[in-house]
Amino acid sequence: MNNFSILSTAHAVPDKIVTNDDLAQIMDTSDAWISRRTGIHERRIATHEDTTSLCVEVANKLLSNTNTDPSDIDYIIVGTMSSDYQTPSTAAAVQGAINADNAVAFDINAACSGFVYGMNVLNSLLKTNHHSKGILIGGEVLSKLVDWKDRSTAVLFGDGAGGILATNDSYDGKVLATSLRTYGQLGNSLTAGHFDENNRFNQNGDDKTRFFKMDGHAIFDFATRKVPESISTALNQAHVNASDVKYFVLHQANSRIIQIVARKLKLSLDQFPININHYGNTAAASEPILLDELVKKGKIRKGDIIALSGFGGGLTAGTIILEF
Amino acid sequence: MNNFSILSTAHAVPDKIVTNDDLAQIMDTSDAWISRRTGIHERRIATHEDTTSLCVEVANKLLSNTNTDPSDIDYIIVGTMSSDYQTPSTAAAVQGAINADNAVAFDINAACSGFVYGMNVLNSLLKTNHHSKGILIGGEVLSKLVDWKDRSTAVLFGDGAGGILATNDSYDGKVLATSLRTYGQLGNSLTAGHFDENNRFNQNGDDKTRFFKMDGHAIFDFATRKVPESISTALNQAHVNASDVKYFVLHQANSRIIQIVARKLKLSLDQFPININHYGNTAAASEPILLDELVKKGKIRKGDIIALSGFGGGLTAGTIILEF
Repeated sequence: MNNFSILSTAHAVPDKIVTNDDLAQIMDTSDAWISRRTGIHERRIATHEDTTSLCVEVANKLLSNTNTDPSDIDYIIVGTMSSDYQTPSTAAAVQGAINADNAVAFDINAACSGFVYGMNVLNSLLKTNHHSKGILIGGEVLSKLVDWKDRSTAVLFGDGAGGILATNDSYDGKVLATSLRTYGQLGNSLTAGHFDENNRFNQNGDDKTRFFKMDGHAIFDFATRKVPESISTALNQAHVNASDVKYFVLHQANSRIIQIVARKLKLSLDQFPININHYGNTAAASEPILLDELVKKGKIRKGDIIALSGFGGGLTAGTIILEF
Repeated sequence: MNNFSILSTAHAVPDKIVTNDDLAQIMDTSDAWISRRTGIHERRIATHEDTTSLCVEVANKLLSNTNTDPSDIDYIIVGTMSSDYQTPSTAAAVQGAINADNAVAFDINAACSGFVYGMNVLNSLLKTNHHSKGILIGGEVLSKLVDWKDRSTAVLFGDGAGGILATNDSYDGKVLATSLRTYGQLGNSLTAGHFDENNRFNQNGDDKTRFFKMDGHAIFDFATRKVPESISTALNQAHVNASDVKYFVLHQANSRIIQIVARKLKLSLDQFPININHYGNTAAASEPILLDELVKKGKIRKGDIIALSGFGGGLTAGTIILEF
C-alpha cells in the first residue's frame, strides 16, 4: 500500500515584489551581480502577511479546489523554519483557521528539506490509517531571519507558501521511492533563527545571531555533490530511469546548483524547471510553489513520474519519486 | 505489526537548581504561593547548557545504555519548542554530534504534546521499515522564552530533556492505541517564541512578544476537560481497563491538573506519578524525564501497560497506550 494521491496543489505568496534593483537602492549590490550568481531577479517579501496567513491561504485553496470538507482532514503538517511562534505551531494555527476539527496538526523543521521530509512523514501516517487525508504545506517568511545589512545573504531569500492535499484512498498516485539523508556534522555551514540564551540566571547572553549565516562555498559544494547522489539513490530504489521522470522539482536555492545537478546526471535542463527568478530561495516552500505552477500550467498530469528534491539547512537532503 | 519496543530511556537536566525561594528574591512571589498553586518547588535552568547539549547527552546515554552503534539508528526526532536555532534543527545537531550517519533527523513542534506527537510519527516511520531503530527526544530550554518580570509565568517553566530508543525489531513492546487531537482555535491561550516581523520593507514590527503569554484559566479548563477525554478515548481504542494501566505518565504542567484528571477518571492518584516538584513544566521533555525516572527506579518493567499523555500549546492533546 504505497498509495499517495495528490488531490490538489496550491500556493500563496506575499503581494510585495522586491526586485534586485530595489535591493541595489539599499545595499551595495546590482541586478547583474545577483542574477548572474543566483538566477534571482525578484522575490516576494511579507509586509501585511505572516507565515500563518500564507499557509492558511494555501490550505483554503486546497479545500476549495477539491470541495473537501475541512472535517475530513486527518493531518495537517507544516514544514517551516520560520513559524510565527514556537507555540502555537503554524500547523495548529492553520487547523484552527480552517476548522479542520479532526486533524492532528504539527510542524516539522528540516529547513529547506522540510517539504520532502514532511512528505515522508505524511505518507507514513496516511499508510497507517485507511481512507485518510492530509494537508502538507511548506511555508516561510524568511525575511524576518534576514540581516538586511549582509548583502551576501539578504539577496537570496524570499517569502511564500505552497502545499498539497493528499490521500491514500485512491488508486492513482503513489510514492515510488524515498531517499532522505541528514548531515548534521555540516550544520554550522548554514544557521538561522537563534534565540539568545540570556536568562535571569545566565545573563551573559551569547554572540550568536538570529539572522542567516551561510558558508556559501560549503553549501554550494554540498548541494552539487549530495543532490545528484540523492536523486540517483531514489531512482535506483524506484527502478525508474531518469529519462522517464517528467520533471525534477528541485529546491530553488540557486539556478547554478540546479544546472550542475542536471549536468552531473547527464540530463537535459528541460527536465529541471526553475522559478527562482521570481521568488528567490523560499526554503520549505520552494518545491510546492514550483509544483503548483507546473500543475496549473498543465505540465504535470496524473500518471506523470516526478521527483522532488530538497536540500539545505541541517544539513539535510532528500528525494521522493512520485507517480503523480 | 504494531511492535514498538522501547530499548532504553534516558534524561538530562541542567546543573543549576533554582528554588522557589531563589525566585522570591527576584520577584514578588513565595514558595508557599508557587507550591500550593502548581506543586513546583524547584526547577533546573540552563546556564552553560543549551537545548542541543541536553539532547546530545540524552542520545549518548541511550546509545551507551544499549551498546548501540550510532550508525544503526534510522531516525532521530526531537520534539521541541525551544530549538537553539531554526536551522539546523536540534535533531540534525544531535545526529551530527553522535555520528548517526544513517539517521534521518528532524524536529517536530507540537509544544507540550511534542513527545506523544513525536512518538506517533516515530511509530509510523518504524512501521514502514523492517528492523529499524529510532531515537525520540523531548528537549527544551524554556528559560529563554520566559519573561522574568512576569511572575505569573516565570515560576512555571524549567529546562531539561528526556528520550527513548525504540525499535520495531522485537516482539516485546507495542503501541496499543494512539489518540491525538489539535484545538487550533484555542491557540491564543498559550503563545511563546514570536520572532517579530520587522524587515526592511515592513519596519512597523509588531507588539507581540517572544516570551510566554498564557491565559492560565483557559489552559487549566482545557487540560482538565480534554485530558480525561483523551485518555478515555485511547483506553477504549486499546480495549484496556484503566485499572490495568500501571502508570499514567502525564505532561507535568501543574500537579492540580493531574489530581483533577485522576479524580475525573475515578482512579487512584497512585497511578499518576508526579515529578513537577523538581523540574517545573518542561514541555515536550516532561513525560520522557518522568518515564526514565520510573524505569530507573524499577517501577516500570517490560510488559507493563502505561499511558503517556501530553497537552498544551497549539492547543494540542494526546494519549498513547503502550505495552512497555
